[in-house]
Amino acid sequence: MTRKALRSDMGWSTADRIVVRGHDLVEDIIGRVSLGDFAFLELKGRLPTREESAVFNAAVVTLVEHGMTPSAIAARLTYLGAPESLQAAVAAGLLGLGGRFGGTVEEAARMLQEGLAGQDAEADLRPIAARIVAQHREASRPIGGLGHPIHKPIDPRVPRLFEVAAENGFSGRHVELVQLVSEEASRALDRPLPVNATGAIGAIAGELEIPWQVTRGLAVMGRAIGLVAHVQEEIADPLATEIWSRVDDEASQHNKT
Amino acid sequence: MTRKALRSDMGWSTADRIVVRGHDLVEDIIGRVSLGDFAFLELKGRLPTREESAVFNAAVVTLVEHGMTPSAIAARLTYLGAPESLQAAVAAGLLGLGGRFGGTVEEAARMLQEGLAGQDAEADLRPIAARIVAQHREASRPIGGLGHPIHKPIDPRVPRLFEVAAENGFSGRHVELVQLVSEEASRALDRPLPVNATGAIGAIAGELEIPWQVTRGLAVMGRAIGLVAHVQEEIADPLATEIWSRVDDEASQHNKT
Amino acid sequence: MTRKALRSDMGWSTADRIVVRGHDLVEDIIGRVSLGDFAFLELKGRLPTREESAVFNAAVVTLVEHGMTPSAIAARLTYLGAPESLQAAVAAGLLGLGGRFGGTVEEAARMLQEGLAGQDAEADLRPIAARIVAQHREASRPIGGLGHPIHKPIDPRVPRLFEVAAENGFSGRHVELVQLVSEEASRALDRPLPVNATGAIGAIAGELEIPWQVTRGLAVMGRAIGLVAHVQEEIADPLATEIWSRVDDEASQHNKT
Amino acid sequence: MTRKALRSDMGWSTADRIVVRGHDLVEDIIGRVSLGDFAFLELKGRLPTREESAVFNAAVVTLVEHGMTPSAIAARLTYLGAPESLQAAVAAGLLGLGGRFGGTVEEAARMLQEGLAGQDAEADLRPIAARIVAQHREASRPIGGLGHPIHKPIDPRVPRLFEVAAENGFSGRHVELVQLVSEEASRALDRPLPVNATGAIGAIAGELEIPWQVTRGLAVMGRAIGLVAHVQEEIADPLATEIWSRVDDEASQHNKT
Repeated sequence: MTRKALRSDMGWSTADRIVVRGHDLVEDIIGRVSLGDFAFLELKGRLPTREESAVFNAAVVTLVEHGMTPSAIAARLTYLGAPESLQAAVAAGLLGLGGRFGGTVEEAARMLQEGLAGQDAEADLRPIAARIVAQHREASRPIGGLGHPIHKPIDPRVPRLFEVAAENGFSGRHVELVQLVSEEASRALDRPLPVNATGAIGAIAGELEIPWQVTRGLAVMGRAIGLVAHVQEEIADPLATEIWSRVDDEASQHNKT
Repeated sequence: MTRKALRSDMGWSTADRIVVRGHDLVEDIIGRVSLGDFAFLELKGRLPTREESAVFNAAVVTLVEHGMTPSAIAARLTYLGAPESLQAAVAAGLLGLGGRFGGTVEEAARMLQEGLAGQDAEADLRPIAARIVAQHREASRPIGGLGHPIHKPIDPRVPRLFEVAAENGFSGRHVELVQLVSEEASRALDRPLPVNATGAIGAIAGELEIPWQVTRGLAVMGRAIGLVAHVQEEIADPLATEIWSRVDDEASQHNKT
Repeated sequence: MTRKALRSDMGWSTADRIVVRGHDLVEDIIGRVSLGDFAFLELKGRLPTREESAVFNAAVVTLVEHGMTPSAIAARLTYLGAPESLQAAVAAGLLGLGGRFGGTVEEAARMLQEGLAGQDAEADLRPIAARIVAQHREASRPIGGLGHPIHKPIDPRVPRLFEVAAENGFSGRHVELVQLVSEEASRALDRPLPVNATGAIGAIAGELEIPWQVTRGLAVMGRAIGLVAHVQEEIADPLATEIWSRVDDEASQHNKT
Repeated sequence: MTRKALRSDMGWSTADRIVVRGHDLVEDIIGRVSLGDFAFLELKGRLPTREESAVFNAAVVTLVEHGMTPSAIAARLTYLGAPESLQAAVAAGLLGLGGRFGGTVEEAARMLQEGLAGQDAEADLRPIAARIVAQHREASRPIGGLGHPIHKPIDPRVPRLFEVAAENGFSGRHVELVQLVSEEASRALDRPLPVNATGAIGAIAGELEIPWQVTRGLAVMGRAIGLVAHVQEEIADPLATEIWSRVDDEASQHNKT
């Protein structure tokens, strides 16, 4: 059978040299490139401009820490059982970044990238927004990236993210479209559906030409950092045993009496 | 039963405000703090100085990408089966950062932090290094952070990492001790055992007063970024099916003939 | 805020007693109930009849082992990096049982359970099958549980699974419907689309009244066993380093020359 | 470079045949072999005798379900975020079966297998038990498989497990040794340290000649079943949001006031 050749351009090394996405790690990266800029290089194959760096770092930083989320609690409970495997606790926490919590960045980015695909750069975006809203209503699907259960009337991260994007020249068609989708959806459903942080980041990912298929990865990168820090707090001041004990006692008390 | 109160200082939010480790996310972080500096804040509870930032970013950046590692291959194979769950592919890859691949930073950091614990700041480090080497030999355990199967005679990342540490005032007792341990071990075993990248990062973590128990987390943070990028390459140019097919065909051919 | 009470009926214990789904573990289970029957109890809340036991065990047993799958290779690569965490290697392998490999049982079960929902027990199933095929064609979606890349012209597990179901009185409407869907699809697409093993198991799950939402769990239960055994073989005769080394060498050789 | 050939004997298939550990899946397994016996085949390469089946199934069944454990809670919290990935919820739960919760079977099995290695079949076991206890005391390490925080004065599973072992001819040297270790430890530490369930299963694994390196896998196999059932209960009656909300509210209330 003819075989496909295996080939990767992520990184390679020889005895005296390590090359990452075409850059010499020792000469060009260590001590010169920050973690966020290196993440940009990993995804885009080139280092960011100053403006790209500002926008990209702002987006990922927003996703790092949200306090005692289900992911953070799952990581802490996992650490309780496997304290020799910090990486397993973080992995357990990341596994909850699925459709409900991590997938909304992806949904928003996809909606915007697919909405703009093949469009003329001058095209009026309002009919595109209207079509997106209509399609979601028809399928009875919520629109990713709009509304928030806690941050009302607006998600305070959104104006700041859009401000950073604008200051750096990245307030383009994706940002415009997500705001129009929000307007159209709010009108069609007759209730406020403002852009939330995942919608803003989905739009910014479009501006940075990050394909929607990997935008969930921005949340994964960020949250991995946050989960390491939660495990550190758990080591210093453990909560997992207490959470377990309370849940177990209450959940089974009807059987014991 | 008296219950322990649950309390965390990682982050919290109200309708119009999000606070992370005491900093207002919108006012103080987004657009002002880079991803690497935010990771420092998450771990240390305060933003880094310019010098700390340089050293911390250099250390984590070093751990992001190593090409086609077992972790990267496992992530790609997992993505093949569950393309709807990018986070699961990254989690699968992180799970391999255990004792053999991820634990060496931790071992090196522990060895150095325990070696220096309770020591006078002027204490001669050579006897401490000799004791560490003797203890490992007695227990027939390899010394974490020394030697490398490929990067010979020296790991090119190490002089650069130590240079960045020195330039920023972080070439202290942990850096000195790991170099003395390398010298003692090379003499005692009569073969070159230079400090490798994980040994250097373990030492730098000590300089930054990051407890050894979470140093493995530096590798987890970095590698999560690298694994997202590997999944991106896998989406664009899939290798997993080819790897699977080759392994399966060869592994079972003795049964089929 | 009014709180929801936490309550679970999976299991509970006191100092001298352990109760699982209402059964005393020591008195009624250990030494009396086999692993497969216990799995049935866990899912259904009661022990199986002899006939249910035969059918349920047959279904899960079919999903345990498929040789060198992507899941098995990922588990072995993970074990290489974290040999202290067998559970992490198995978990990494399970993560690949997503939409593409594990989700087909679920899709088939869902299609059949939704197709039969609200139907009269005497209803003619052929129009239901035709509608299912038409809906999938319209959406350009493949039909879960039909066709197989290797097992042609028929998947040998299917007649055996249906035989076991029939012998034990579980060849009902779900089994009939999946076969009609196969007939309709083969005609509509003008190529053979026989029921495959996941389609047969999806149908059997319907016969056993296991909700489609947890049918993927049958694959998870089975494969966890298979992955433990793969790790055992990996310990005795390691392949992971060889796989890694081949992939890494080939994937980066274009850069090194 | 000379390459190692890849070779596995777990399973293989051709167009019309599937073979698992040397047995034809269709002819010999489906409908004839139960899940527990198939797990034995996977690990041992042959089907169990009736007696081996009784003992093996008893051991694994004991490990399936323990109610609202940290693993079960972590699985439920993960499912909340990623309801499309049941396998990820189970994987997250399994990751907690590490040193503290899953590793005790392994520790007990290792202690017994290493204690008996190279011993004459007639050797007096009491000095071996005394040596094991002395070594653990010297290293200030707890002895795996002894004592239980809840099941006092005895773990009710243990006499039943040993009864099943004895009835089937598997009450041999490993069972004897773990009981002697318990006696010696109780005397040396002057407090009751009875064999617990993991100690009994560790001993039974030795009787069945399952290498200690994979005994943690018995817990993984069993618990994968239990976690699927917990996710099923979570789907029917969700607790994760309530747990999250309580923990989050309490943990951050000191910041909000």
